[in-house]
Amino acid sequence: MGVRLPGGQARRRRRLGRARPGPHLDRGPRVSRPTEDPACRALGITLEDLGPGRARLRMRITDAMVNLHGVAHGGYVFLLADAAFAYACNSRGPVTLAHSAQVTFVRPAAPGEDLLAEAEERVRYGRHGVYDVTVRRPGGEVVAEFRGQSVAVSGRPS
Amino acid sequence: MGVRLPGGQARRRRRLGRARPGPHLDRGPRVSRPTEDPACRALGITLEDLGPGRARLRMRITDAMVNLHGVAHGGYVFLLADAAFAYACNSRGPVTLAHSAQVTFVRPAAPGEDLLAEAEERVRYGRHGVYDVTVRRPGGEVVAEFRGQSVAVSGRPS
Amino acid sequence: MGVRLPGGQARRRRRLGRARPGPHLDRGPRVSRPTEDPACRALGITLEDLGPGRARLRMRITDAMVNLHGVAHGGYVFLLADAAFAYACNSRGPVTLAHSAQVTFVRPAAPGEDLLAEAEERVRYGRHGVYDVTVRRPGGEVVAEFRGQSVAVSGRPS
Amino acid sequence: MGVRLPGGQARRRRRLGRARPGPHLDRGPRVSRPTEDPACRALGITLEDLGPGRARLRMRITDAMVNLHGVAHGGYVFLLADAAFAYACNSRGPVTLAHSAQVTFVRPAAPGEDLLAEAEERVRYGRHGVYDVTVRRPGGEVVAEFRGQSVAVSGRPS
Repeated sequence: MGVRLPGGQARRRRRLGRARPGPHLDRGPRVSRPTEDPACRALGITLEDLGPGRARLRMRITDAMVNLHGVAHGGYVFLLADAAFAYACNSRGPVTLAHSAQVTFVRPAAPGEDLLAEAEERVRYGRHGVYDVTVRRPGGEVVAEFRGQSVAVSGRPS
Repeated sequence: MGVRLPGGQARRRRRLGRARPGPHLDRGPRVSRPTEDPACRALGITLEDLGPGRARLRMRITDAMVNLHGVAHGGYVFLLADAAFAYACNSRGPVTLAHSAQVTFVRPAAPGEDLLAEAEERVRYGRHGVYDVTVRRPGGEVVAEFRGQSVAVSGRPS
Repeated sequence: MGVRLPGGQARRRRRLGRARPGPHLDRGPRVSRPTEDPACRALGITLEDLGPGRARLRMRITDAMVNLHGVAHGGYVFLLADAAFAYACNSRGPVTLAHSAQVTFVRPAAPGEDLLAEAEERVRYGRHGVYDVTVRRPGGEVVAEFRGQSVAVSGRPS
Repeated sequence: MGVRLPGGQARRRRRLGRARPGPHLDRGPRVSRPTEDPACRALGITLEDLGPGRARLRMRITDAMVNLHGVAHGGYVFLLADAAFAYACNSRGPVTLAHSAQVTFVRPAAPGEDLLAEAEERVRYGRHGVYDVTVRRPGGEVVAEFRGQSVAVSGRPS
């Protein structure tokens, strides 16, 4: 990506680079906990599950997230999916960035609803990966289908 | 999209359906003004230009918009592009929704920076359209390239 | 799509519209058979499996399909995936077209290799659908990941 | 891409790596000439124009290229766009591959029609690039809009 991370981000990157080890990697209890990412935390997004190549995040649609049609702005639906993608593709160790992503908007979501985004690794090859994220309403109806392409920028390709 | 807009949104839809008529459609002064969309307004996004098939929006990256790498979360970069896409594809009259979108992340953006998203119609056919949005830093460097596919859900195809 | 099918295609469309009924819909023997589509047949593409929302096609990479790098042209890899997508999204009845598609090229394939494309429905909503297709080498290595967006243009939405 | 080019392709790669120098790089007469790529040549695709970051290719839709609907198979429309993308992104020197691509199918094309694909560089950054390709009928009507993401695998990033 030609990514030049700003100075002073070493600590954050290291935290990310450690692949979120310990109890929450695959073995831990599936309890909801706050996300570490400032953007996600500010939106109240919680991490419901995290494992090698996968992640599940939850976000409540607030009144501040609606568009002119009165439903969740597609940007916030994408943001939730993109955050799940980031957690999933960073779950294995090397710092990994989003190269690109594609989203199909399936159904609107309304303020007050909780959305769940579930990310799964589809394939990894060299430093690259492809991840699928489905965003659902609590009842299971699909709100959006997202596919992300990742690239690792540090550490050994795994 | 099988979109079922929630009840009570008639007023908002009508406002949108009117295609933002009047002085700001192509002829008006190119002054910055607040966006009407609640999500955009809450983020301080301003409308810098609006015309048939095009729109330009501005957003300042705040500390609450950064990811674990300390740069603008891709979700917010997408949101800005998606909002510009929505303004551009609704500029002609019929209520138009995003069917899908694709984004390529080119460079990171840092907190404090203003991003400009410029949307342009690429092609329209029947109820469908394709729009390109480039997100840039103030200096002109590209941060992201976005392409959106739209579908009109009301009014005559134009 | 604003699709205007050329005259004289009624017979073909009817054949397609009948959703390929009979023994090969889900119940039949999983034997390889020629495809009906002229482009696929001319390339020797065979149908290995077909069921509701899914299809599997096979294509041998010939010397006439290679690019300047001496590997399978991405266009042919896409064509195979797109054909599997078309079979899968037309498997349920109404004539269904590709609205758009996205492909990630994972590994090259060499002349003489047989590629297998496996299409699966991810979600349907109204007249729309999202399908995933994975293209693999005989050994199972992924060559490409494809996602297609469909839209039904005749019959009732199912 | 983890691309492992097969042995014995050195000559071909060198030819590509030379960026098609000489009279046809930007300065030459805009005459149609055969493509060097075996897949393109076998399909009768001709190169109409080539310059830094851009290319224009032409392909005639034959009866062997139609789908069950009797119109050009989307795979061939994509192939033509992908080939124009490859020419454009290799026009500057380093061997460059397609990382991924997205296509929106706008209108069908009929057998006997000539399609023109025009590729333009949208942005380059490091080893990466984004290219837009529009496929048109001779009359100028858009058949498909394509966007490709490239990555250079040899030589210096330019």
